[in-house]
Amino acid sequence: MFNFLSFFLILFSGPETEKRVIKCKAALAWEPGKPLAIEDVEVDPPKVHEVRIKIVATGVCHTDWEYLYGQGMKVRPFPLVLGHEAAGVVESVGPEVTKFSPGDKVIPLFLPQCGECERCLSPKTNHCRKNWANMQVGVLADGTSRISCKGQQVYQFLGISSFCQYTVVPDTSLAKIRCDAPLDKVCLLGCGVSTGYGAAVNTGKVKKQSSCAVFGLGAVGLAAVMGCQVAGAKRIIGVDINPDKFEKAAVFGATECVNPKDHKKPIQEVLAEMTDGGVDYALECVGDPAIMTAAFESTKDAWGSCVIAGWTETGMMNVVVEKILMGRTLSGTYFGGWKSVEDVPKLVDDYMNKKLKLDEFITHNLPLDQINVAFGLLKSGNSIRTVISL
Amino acid sequence: MFNFLSFFLILFSGPETEKRVIKCKAALAWEPGKPLAIEDVEVDPPKVHEVRIKIVATGVCHTDWEYLYGQGMKVRPFPLVLGHEAAGVVESVGPEVTKFSPGDKVIPLFLPQCGECERCLSPKTNHCRKNWANMQVGVLADGTSRISCKGQQVYQFLGISSFCQYTVVPDTSLAKIRCDAPLDKVCLLGCGVSTGYGAAVNTGKVKKQSSCAVFGLGAVGLAAVMGCQVAGAKRIIGVDINPDKFEKAAVFGATECVNPKDHKKPIQEVLAEMTDGGVDYALECVGDPAIMTAAFESTKDAWGSCVIAGWTETGMMNVVVEKILMGRTLSGTYFGGWKSVEDVPKLVDDYMNKKLKLDEFITHNLPLDQINVAFGLLKSGNSIRTVISL
Repeated sequence: MFNFLSFFLILFSGPETEKRVIKCKAALAWEPGKPLAIEDVEVDPPKVHEVRIKIVATGVCHTDWEYLYGQGMKVRPFPLVLGHEAAGVVESVGPEVTKFSPGDKVIPLFLPQCGECERCLSPKTNHCRKNWANMQVGVLADGTSRISCKGQQVYQFLGISSFCQYTVVPDTSLAKIRCDAPLDKVCLLGCGVSTGYGAAVNTGKVKKQSSCAVFGLGAVGLAAVMGCQVAGAKRIIGVDINPDKFEKAAVFGATECVNPKDHKKPIQEVLAEMTDGGVDYALECVGDPAIMTAAFESTKDAWGSCVIAGWTETGMMNVVVEKILMGRTLSGTYFGGWKSVEDVPKLVDDYMNKKLKLDEFITHNLPLDQINVAFGLLKSGNSIRTVISL
Repeated sequence: MFNFLSFFLILFSGPETEKRVIKCKAALAWEPGKPLAIEDVEVDPPKVHEVRIKIVATGVCHTDWEYLYGQGMKVRPFPLVLGHEAAGVVESVGPEVTKFSPGDKVIPLFLPQCGECERCLSPKTNHCRKNWANMQVGVLADGTSRISCKGQQVYQFLGISSFCQYTVVPDTSLAKIRCDAPLDKVCLLGCGVSTGYGAAVNTGKVKKQSSCAVFGLGAVGLAAVMGCQVAGAKRIIGVDINPDKFEKAAVFGATECVNPKDHKKPIQEVLAEMTDGGVDYALECVGDPAIMTAAFESTKDAWGSCVIAGWTETGMMNVVVEKILMGRTLSGTYFGGWKSVEDVPKLVDDYMNKKLKLDEFITHNLPLDQINVAFGLLKSGNSIRTVISL
């Protein structure tokens, strides 16, 4: 079948750019704590088992902000290009790449799925470690990045760097998606929505008629609310200190919302009173250890399950042992438990088939040169997701 | 069928004692921190839905010691009679008791199974709460105990009090077992062995060919080792600071043992090195929050599961959030996840069919008046289980 878009992309970026360095724009983080700078960068051709992609759209996730401004990350090499929740089109492929061709629509993945390791072969986990150590320090398999600026190597955030018009990723960190998927929507499946939704349906395995509490109503939390609804939960209680989020939570399926600031008692006690002893499932979507403890304690004796979906690499949470002994379980999710390469295309299908909402997460659309505005909207609580077009 | 033992018991304790107060011996705890005193006590007849039993044998569990001498319990009414890991024979039954008759061999249960509540009807949990609040404060359903001494009410530990020749328990806290079971052995199924064994096979759901670490090689830990072996684990690593326990651990199935004192590194790092990143399952059988954290951290990324079987009502453990996010699960067991009334008789069957070891736990047999010696053996690490005959 003649694919007009692929043809067009090959025309403008395929044969002309293949095997050459591409000069393009990126939002560059020169050092921690400083706003991003729009710079001209050079993106090398893909090496063996790598794919160079043109980023079409990218979400701005709290983890990007945290890496630049926060304290929750252990390793932060600079300069780097942030961005990890994106969608694009394959521009060219390196040697030995068999599953991708120029023009393919793709979502880059910060969690790989090599398909061959013990973990990929196990149904118990999605924690593939292909290229893991390199990705954590901002480089690809050969120990270098494919992006440079003014002759200086620029590190790739989580092996991706989608705040750049082009980037290069390993072919085990890329999901090929259907050609009719709108990239400015499905980019959200690259991180936040998949994480929250999967926390409910995969990690928590939320059951029909159950009661759930979702802590934090950002994109991850709202996606968790949606997961609880798709799973058939009877009560879905959204918890946030920003009541402006409550209307949106209802759109995704929250049956009620609670603001901890409206109560003198700890929120776990409030929830226990609301639910005859606690909820069946609590999903922490903030990344704050104190909130994790509250979420854990808001679950009921006997079978309460708390899933941590919020991210921190440096936090430590307190667990009252008796509450574990009384039957609660504590677990965590990483990318929602999805096997990334094989499951992301299915999530795209679910969106196209209207099983999953995505449009409703997007509160703002901005061009790349407004990326710092997007960070501001995120931290002020005035956006759920801003999608950046590149 | 003529049951000689039942006939004999009815002769000596049935018709003569039924509906009367029984005078007998008990090891009484007058106040915390003081040795037990052998006293003459009075045991009232059973009230509605209660059963009076003659205790034949009782184990001495660490929880008994903790209640008397430790800091790990929240509520400790005194005076009381300790003991909760026992076996005996029904002496008489109160009104509306339909499932027990004088002469039945029984194991009293600190965890009830009413068979009617939401929890009993769910396969997800064994946490029945019948009479729970009363049991925690040492009384039966009507708010009083059936034991008194010198005119003073004596509280019943966990609703049982097996350091007494007779006691009265609710009929939902009693398992009827086969008449050929040796009570001086199967008494251990009333607490420690069931807890540790079930922690592995029920709560942990240890899989074939897996690797396990068991922290603490007392009775609960050795039973956990046995559970790992019955489940088909490939490596079962016993961890204890008392190397005298290692020989016994091998009897129950440990493939190797480690003494944390032999290493400068934290034990979780030692175990990670021994097992290419961590064990599949860690079972904490001590009740110490620091050891719980070590056990949790000794499990591997992606699917490591840590089960807390050691008891503390006051402890708080630290959990590095990243280790949860990387795929570990933390859960707890209470009475090994067994549905007490229905599963304890099956465990007795397993012992009689030689699937379960019990004799090997018993290092000492003593009469009731030597109960303080049994506590001394327990705390010095010189016994696994002392069985007291009454």
